[in-house]
Amino acid sequence: MEMAKMIRVTVWNEFRHEKKDAKIAALYPEGIHGAIAKYLRTQEGLEVRTATLDEPQHGLSDEVLNSTDVLTWWGHMAHGEVSDEIVDKVQARVLAGMGLVVLHSGHFSKIFKKLMGTTCDLKWREIGEKERIWVVEPGHPIAAGLPEYFEIPHTEMYGERFDIPAPDTLVFISWFAGGEVFRSGCCFHRGAGKIFYFRPGHETLPIYHQKEVLLVIGNAVRWAAPLGGPKVTFGNVKPLEAVSAS
Amino acid sequence: MEMAKMIRVTVWNEFRHEKKDAKIAALYPEGIHGAIAKYLRTQEGLEVRTATLDEPQHGLSDEVLNSTDVLTWWGHMAHGEVSDEIVDKVQARVLAGMGLVVLHSGHFSKIFKKLMGTTCDLKWREIGEKERIWVVEPGHPIAAGLPEYFEIPHTEMYGERFDIPAPDTLVFISWFAGGEVFRSGCCFHRGAGKIFYFRPGHETLPIYHQKEVLLVIGNAVRWAAPLGGPKVTFGNVKPLEAVSAS
Amino acid sequence: MEMAKMIRVTVWNEFRHEKKDAKIAALYPEGIHGAIAKYLRTQEGLEVRTATLDEPQHGLSDEVLNSTDVLTWWGHMAHGEVSDEIVDKVQARVLAGMGLVVLHSGHFSKIFKKLMGTTCDLKWREIGEKERIWVVEPGHPIAAGLPEYFEIPHTEMYGERFDIPAPDTLVFISWFAGGEVFRSGCCFHRGAGKIFYFRPGHETLPIYHQKEVLLVIGNAVRWAAPLGGPKVTFGNVKPLEAVSAS
Amino acid sequence: MEMAKMIRVTVWNEFRHEKKDAKIAALYPEGIHGAIAKYLRTQEGLEVRTATLDEPQHGLSDEVLNSTDVLTWWGHMAHGEVSDEIVDKVQARVLAGMGLVVLHSGHFSKIFKKLMGTTCDLKWREIGEKERIWVVEPGHPIAAGLPEYFEIPHTEMYGERFDIPAPDTLVFISWFAGGEVFRSGCCFHRGAGKIFYFRPGHETLPIYHQKEVLLVIGNAVRWAAPLGGPKVTFGNVKPLEAVSAS
Repeated sequence: MEMAKMIRVTVWNEFRHEKKDAKIAALYPEGIHGAIAKYLRTQEGLEVRTATLDEPQHGLSDEVLNSTDVLTWWGHMAHGEVSDEIVDKVQARVLAGMGLVVLHSGHFSKIFKKLMGTTCDLKWREIGEKERIWVVEPGHPIAAGLPEYFEIPHTEMYGERFDIPAPDTLVFISWFAGGEVFRSGCCFHRGAGKIFYFRPGHETLPIYHQKEVLLVIGNAVRWAAPLGGPKVTFGNVKPLEAVSAS
Repeated sequence: MEMAKMIRVTVWNEFRHEKKDAKIAALYPEGIHGAIAKYLRTQEGLEVRTATLDEPQHGLSDEVLNSTDVLTWWGHMAHGEVSDEIVDKVQARVLAGMGLVVLHSGHFSKIFKKLMGTTCDLKWREIGEKERIWVVEPGHPIAAGLPEYFEIPHTEMYGERFDIPAPDTLVFISWFAGGEVFRSGCCFHRGAGKIFYFRPGHETLPIYHQKEVLLVIGNAVRWAAPLGGPKVTFGNVKPLEAVSAS
Repeated sequence: MEMAKMIRVTVWNEFRHEKKDAKIAALYPEGIHGAIAKYLRTQEGLEVRTATLDEPQHGLSDEVLNSTDVLTWWGHMAHGEVSDEIVDKVQARVLAGMGLVVLHSGHFSKIFKKLMGTTCDLKWREIGEKERIWVVEPGHPIAAGLPEYFEIPHTEMYGERFDIPAPDTLVFISWFAGGEVFRSGCCFHRGAGKIFYFRPGHETLPIYHQKEVLLVIGNAVRWAAPLGGPKVTFGNVKPLEAVSAS
Repeated sequence: MEMAKMIRVTVWNEFRHEKKDAKIAALYPEGIHGAIAKYLRTQEGLEVRTATLDEPQHGLSDEVLNSTDVLTWWGHMAHGEVSDEIVDKVQARVLAGMGLVVLHSGHFSKIFKKLMGTTCDLKWREIGEKERIWVVEPGHPIAAGLPEYFEIPHTEMYGERFDIPAPDTLVFISWFAGGEVFRSGCCFHRGAGKIFYFRPGHETLPIYHQKEVLLVIGNAVRWAAPLGGPKVTFGNVKPLEAVSAS
């Protein structure tokens, strides 16, 4: 079945912080997309490429989108520069079955807000506090290979209320030293596509070099990949059964 | 508690079919909004007004929206004429706590699609076939007062796949004589607001005069009413606990 | 509609700690049930009585159960002494529509485990640490009247993984000073009944005198009350439509 | 990752009808378990064995259970003969991560009722009417390879209200010629395990020879297989953070 097929992953990154800030560049010399892609390329069954904001069409031409099974999304300072036309195309692809893995500050990306229908707003704080991520649905594929919890020693805090629809499955809840909690791993079915929001990750911290974080991203990519479900049709249809006049 | 307070309902209708087609006008002489409002006015605890597309600001001025606890929405032929600005205001009000009850062809309204993040597309057929609506969550407040199922003798069919997010609670499933099924009663939390999608209803059929349909709309209005939950805040926050330096 | 009807509440308590330990007795001189019932009696629309383990049939005769709309349950040291026959009757009543509000250590009661189908196990610690309870579904009736979060200054900790089915609606998540999180307010539909699990509360701490805790219990009782939904039938049935021979 | 590992499947069958009724024996000469196992053995990545009621310990010794990744369950006339001790062991294994696929009349098995916490009752009728199974969550792995709907020409009807907890994911809804609907494909997380209930199948009909039905069972087995999630621990724990005295 589908297991033999390669999953074609496109790792998208805004890729601005890394160009403007020497410290961030030192942390992610190949960009955040580079760090994520590097890990995913170690995984069997994945074909990985990257795309960034400043490429033509943000690197997301029809050809790229149509040959992408799962798109991962990191953005932060330039959400507003992503073209509405591209966002509409990404949304259509997700609804048609493409997986989408939204990372950290991607919660405020146009594409995530559009697919959720809510503000996707939250509380935040940048003091480098500790985060502990608890697995609350241990049988879910995205929790494969994890311990009961893992810690991120220094992180930006995101706190509830996270203004999203209740996820179809809640996999992780975060604890923060400063007193907040957060629904950190959230699965959504939208159209024929699957979406995973994963909280950790920040441009000034080595979070995308941490093994548990990368493990989750890899799991999420596999979970979100399309599996050849039915081609859904819409519109005016004839009856499938004889309907008696009345 | 909140039970003493009146629920302020605004019944919104596109109100075009009724003006253009004598048969429809005969069926709904005061408009579909008139039929729904008439029933709701018989219910204790509700304050009911109506609003329609061709009024200034579609009858949904800031003053009206800000004094509406629950908005019911019927539209069909003129979804595209609803101004994006008003849609944005309605969305913001729902996310801030206003209830929204979306009826029948309102599945394709701008406001419902925007809040769902999906196409909200479906299959349909207009041959006046029979629909049987089964209660699948009998303890839900929207099922209060209903039998196990009720029938609509002649209806427009809506069939799955209904391209919406899985509802937080699925209350009704419809059976159609022509061979389809449909998730006909769907509850969603979005922001601080509650949304109910209810399938039945059509401009050429007396469905909004049927007692079970009206009963459900009344129940839905009461369920969707805001109850004085917390005022949620977002943005940059200070720690609630002392965080040790590290 | 149902709003006019009184909700008949039975507040059940194991009532052993209070008899055996002078400090606990000082904290809850009328028992934990007494403290909860006292609050509920201040609420309009509720008719409140109590029942305890050492009464005949644990105070839950057929007559009491059949005239109870919502049962609240607190137990801790004597779960095993609750008779299986009574547990079966309570389960049947819940499935027939009675509401059930399970408090704190009631997570390990026979009735809760039976209705959940899982171990309902969790992590715990008794060092009197701080708990902060965050509202994650602000539009839910059980969050009415609450702020964004509230604190319990000294509490027994309960930590994830909480081995329950994912709740139909998750209303609260707790943060604990010692590093854990917990799904603290969990709504379940089971049969025609509604169940709310609420974490706070402990026999050696004045938690059932805290106003937010009592407010939530009152909200939960109102939410869990049956509303006159359909009488569901089961078994062998005749076709509702003519089925063609084949 | 886990994809390389074989999934060890045990196909359980009551295996009584086939011994007592010549017509049923002719339909399933190797038993219903034989028909299902035969298909699963054509699937890559699965190791398949069978077990039946009349074997010692119903074929479910500790050794068998401990080396089973996914158990499929068919029973009908002899649910009461399944030993409570074995049921308790199967429940414990599911909560520890074993997948469980419950078929058709297995809705009334001890193990399914115990894991659901409800009566699992439903309406039924045996007149060989037509069933049409609609996919309502097309992106779910259990829908892989299916068309939008498929039909079972002659089936026993199961109708709502199906007295189960709302599934975590609802994949299929059935339409029946006689006028009912049914939630036919239901996914549940329980403990670390995953459960799929699949409605089709009957002892007097060739349903377990139908390709779509077998395809779904194969998909369900793969979906339900454990994936190496965290080992969850419970009980009294030390704080993970320094808690200030107060």
